[in-house]
Amino acid sequence: MSHPLFEKHKETLTKAVAAIEARGYWSPYPENPRAYGEHATEDGRAAFEAYRNAQFYLDQPGMIDRVGAEISPYGLPLNITYPRCHPDALIAAAKAAMPNWIKAGPDVRAGVCLEILARLNACSMEMAHAVMHTTGQALMMAFQAAGPHAQDRGLEAVAYAWREMKHVPESAIWEKPQGKNPPLRMEKRFTIMPRGVALNIACSTFPTWNSYPGLFASLVTGNPVIVKAHPAVILPLAIAVAVARKVLKEAGFDANLVSLLVDEAASPVAKEVATQPDIRLIDYTGGPAFGNWLEKNAQQAAVFTEKAGVNCIVIDSIDDYKGMLRNLAFTLSLYSGQMCTTPQTMFVSSEGVATPEGVVSAEQFGKDLAFAVSKFLEDPARAVEVLGAIQSTATEARIERARELGTVLRDSSAIEHPHWPGACVHTPLLLKVALSDERAYMEEHFGPIAFVVEAPSTSASLATAERVIREQGAITFSVYTTNPGVLQMAEEASLRAGVALSINLTSGVFVNQSSGFSDFHATGANPAANACLTDSAFVAGRFFVVQSRRHI
Amino acid sequence: MSHPLFEKHKETLTKAVAAIEARGYWSPYPENPRAYGEHATEDGRAAFEAYRNAQFYLDQPGMIDRVGAEISPYGLPLNITYPRCHPDALIAAAKAAMPNWIKAGPDVRAGVCLEILARLNACSMEMAHAVMHTTGQALMMAFQAAGPHAQDRGLEAVAYAWREMKHVPESAIWEKPQGKNPPLRMEKRFTIMPRGVALNIACSTFPTWNSYPGLFASLVTGNPVIVKAHPAVILPLAIAVAVARKVLKEAGFDANLVSLLVDEAASPVAKEVATQPDIRLIDYTGGPAFGNWLEKNAQQAAVFTEKAGVNCIVIDSIDDYKGMLRNLAFTLSLYSGQMCTTPQTMFVSSEGVATPEGVVSAEQFGKDLAFAVSKFLEDPARAVEVLGAIQSTATEARIERARELGTVLRDSSAIEHPHWPGACVHTPLLLKVALSDERAYMEEHFGPIAFVVEAPSTSASLATAERVIREQGAITFSVYTTNPGVLQMAEEASLRAGVALSINLTSGVFVNQSSGFSDFHATGANPAANACLTDSAFVAGRFFVVQSRRHI
Repeated sequence: MSHPLFEKHKETLTKAVAAIEARGYWSPYPENPRAYGEHATEDGRAAFEAYRNAQFYLDQPGMIDRVGAEISPYGLPLNITYPRCHPDALIAAAKAAMPNWIKAGPDVRAGVCLEILARLNACSMEMAHAVMHTTGQALMMAFQAAGPHAQDRGLEAVAYAWREMKHVPESAIWEKPQGKNPPLRMEKRFTIMPRGVALNIACSTFPTWNSYPGLFASLVTGNPVIVKAHPAVILPLAIAVAVARKVLKEAGFDANLVSLLVDEAASPVAKEVATQPDIRLIDYTGGPAFGNWLEKNAQQAAVFTEKAGVNCIVIDSIDDYKGMLRNLAFTLSLYSGQMCTTPQTMFVSSEGVATPEGVVSAEQFGKDLAFAVSKFLEDPARAVEVLGAIQSTATEARIERARELGTVLRDSSAIEHPHWPGACVHTPLLLKVALSDERAYMEEHFGPIAFVVEAPSTSASLATAERVIREQGAITFSVYTTNPGVLQMAEEASLRAGVALSINLTSGVFVNQSSGFSDFHATGANPAANACLTDSAFVAGRFFVVQSRRHI
Repeated sequence: MSHPLFEKHKETLTKAVAAIEARGYWSPYPENPRAYGEHATEDGRAAFEAYRNAQFYLDQPGMIDRVGAEISPYGLPLNITYPRCHPDALIAAAKAAMPNWIKAGPDVRAGVCLEILARLNACSMEMAHAVMHTTGQALMMAFQAAGPHAQDRGLEAVAYAWREMKHVPESAIWEKPQGKNPPLRMEKRFTIMPRGVALNIACSTFPTWNSYPGLFASLVTGNPVIVKAHPAVILPLAIAVAVARKVLKEAGFDANLVSLLVDEAASPVAKEVATQPDIRLIDYTGGPAFGNWLEKNAQQAAVFTEKAGVNCIVIDSIDDYKGMLRNLAFTLSLYSGQMCTTPQTMFVSSEGVATPEGVVSAEQFGKDLAFAVSKFLEDPARAVEVLGAIQSTATEARIERARELGTVLRDSSAIEHPHWPGACVHTPLLLKVALSDERAYMEEHFGPIAFVVEAPSTSASLATAERVIREQGAITFSVYTTNPGVLQMAEEASLRAGVALSINLTSGVFVNQSSGFSDFHATGANPAANACLTDSAFVAGRFFVVQSRRHI
């Protein structure tokens, strides 16, 4: 079945499929704001401002009332309300929307999904402001991460799912020889059937980047999606849902294939909705406690979780010590450590760090790193563009408490934002703890909190890091070494622990960055996530193949 | 990495991948016994006889003692003992065997798996006798189903898994432009990592056909497999495991990548082993009770189940009434209904069955079908070749009890086997029950027990069949109709219920037959199975992708 939207986006889709198989650098969505027009930033700001102090319009069924209490981490009250709809009504509407969406088939659905992504791309700067003023990300990061980079991940999921669906022919002629008798001949038809209504539970720090993979993987395989926003970070997903609904409607489909579910912090609904028999798919990003609960209790659904863990770095030796320090200072500062990829625990050997300039003692490394972070954040105007703001008061409180966990190498301090006097900005806290103090460094402390742990040897560093990752989970693992033997040990540890390894990052790539179409995000092999967000297993279970056969 | 076994089997593998995408008729394993040599049947029998009254040799670790109490459903005591090994020892040995198997990579593993399948193919007739004298299948069926057809399904799983693994490149160069500055360049390496030790829990009726998909899907993706045989049907899997171990060893790998776990009916071990933390994959075929238990309780593992259900037929109208009756008579008789694909409940409208010769009343249809079955089984020598023997005394008892469930249209009777005086052969029991008597026809009665249910209309037949399938699960659904409107309704019902539909089978294809590389077996979309045994979702979750990246 040909369709204008499929024709329109076919080339992009074909390139995306090639990209997931080549896994080099590729993106159809420019990450340079200039590509979006001269006035993009201001237009985006204006669009964002238009949402403020108003009712967000979404024509959804089962509306109970309007809720919304978002306050920007930069101090701005958003004063936006969203329709709170009864989950049963959203589920019923989603189910009613399915038959035509199923009939449309993989190509049309992919065309519609790519059109949604194209429209989301066009409003990337509007999204940037919305994400900035809910998550606390600095504007440029919000633009890239919630705009083009999130769209990359959405397109990547569509590409994976479309490739899987297209592996199944629509029909086949089966002709079995019968010796001298005429062959048996049958026509077989194969239909891609979705699993059912999907619930997409978003997080408060990367609402689009972490939700788009599941959202688009489910939608393109025929499943309607109910997007459950975090009560503190609704606007970005409200915008995304509104765009999706508009495109669906324009293309002649039922807008209720994508809907927004909101609740209030005081009366959360996710648990109850997640265990409804009609919810057959769940994508979740957030803390491990609720993620583990979902895996255990939402047995009627296929559950994909990205939780969290304790990302580790092992520092053995390096040929560019200053480059390493600069790289680490940026990595620890970026969005104040509020990334599922930010390293928390750094292991260094008592034998010190070998560099071309001689061995740097473990103690000195701690001091050097503390100094590098402080230097990097010296200029508040520059610092806030990297640090962003703290999304949640829980994270602020966590910084307070963490000071007790070890010796302070570098204290966290509040920074006054040059443009946003009410902004909640804190520099990273760097602590030194003993190897024996597992209680401190083996537990996740989400936010700008990192530990330097001295181990008796690099082998001990690697062994401990591997154990931390296997037990607590991790999305990233990083090693600095010039020693081929150590590198091999690190590679083997990363394979055993099922964690992505970054080696000797000293320049413009940071361990907490994951590149669309190239880096696999999470693995599913350690407790940080039960799925990789960017592989075949993430999409294959979202649909079934139902066949018919008849003689011809 | 090139490897002689990969080179040897590359062409077959390439053709298998083409076959799963075309889904026409294809097989590399001939189903005609003549292709296996003039003396194949006798040689197979001799090989089978050599196992009898002896100790089956398997050089496995952790041996406790020897057990084995198989008695052929044809009356022959096998008197074979197998090493009973401690599960912990098998798990430990499996884990120790993994590193080299992982390093071998997808191509080498696929080559080894295809060599195992080729060796299994060569001993198909030996397997046939082993399967006949454990499952009760007649020799020719045992040969085809447990030999080439099972090998087809094993190869199909290898093809799916290999294709998925090969979609991931071994390495990539990522080069991101940086405006006027030199690009960022990284080398990324991607390693396929297995999930962990797999437990393959086999059934008593199709030990190889139902186990090979999971076994080979796990093995080729790098996971060691512990095959847990049903205590009454060990020999076929012992043979398969011995072949796999021999090939692995010859190829330089650890034989403990595939091992056999046996227990006794009085002291089953599956539950305990299935919940071991080190068991990370479970494939199960068997009754729904234990299947559901595994899905609920073995949460540390990815669990793939093929349970059972109530397969349905809706009879509306047909242009070849006699052909339909002949087809149904064979279908109901084949292996005495001991197939997960055998229909159990047939719905016919009170308005009768429209045929070119006029309308046949519902009552008459019941009589005609009863007569057709009796006529088909008239000659005992021919009958036993279709019926085989009853595998389990529980099934015999079920036939006894089932008589009470409705009006007997055709009674089950014992047949004396011309060659095996001790054989347990029973013809099918055909009952008529009322539409209101759901207790009877909505529950699975495994074995040669079928129901004719009169519904007020074909619409009512379809609606009830759909409800049965959605609630109880089904692997097959069949419709007879010449009415395009009814056909469309049936097709839509089959899609909604997630069950494969066979339309108007009146000649040499039977609803209980599933053709390798063409028919998808089960869907995962209804309670009969949580997975399709022959799709991407069945393989994709068996491995992870773990990457490393470094600047170049």
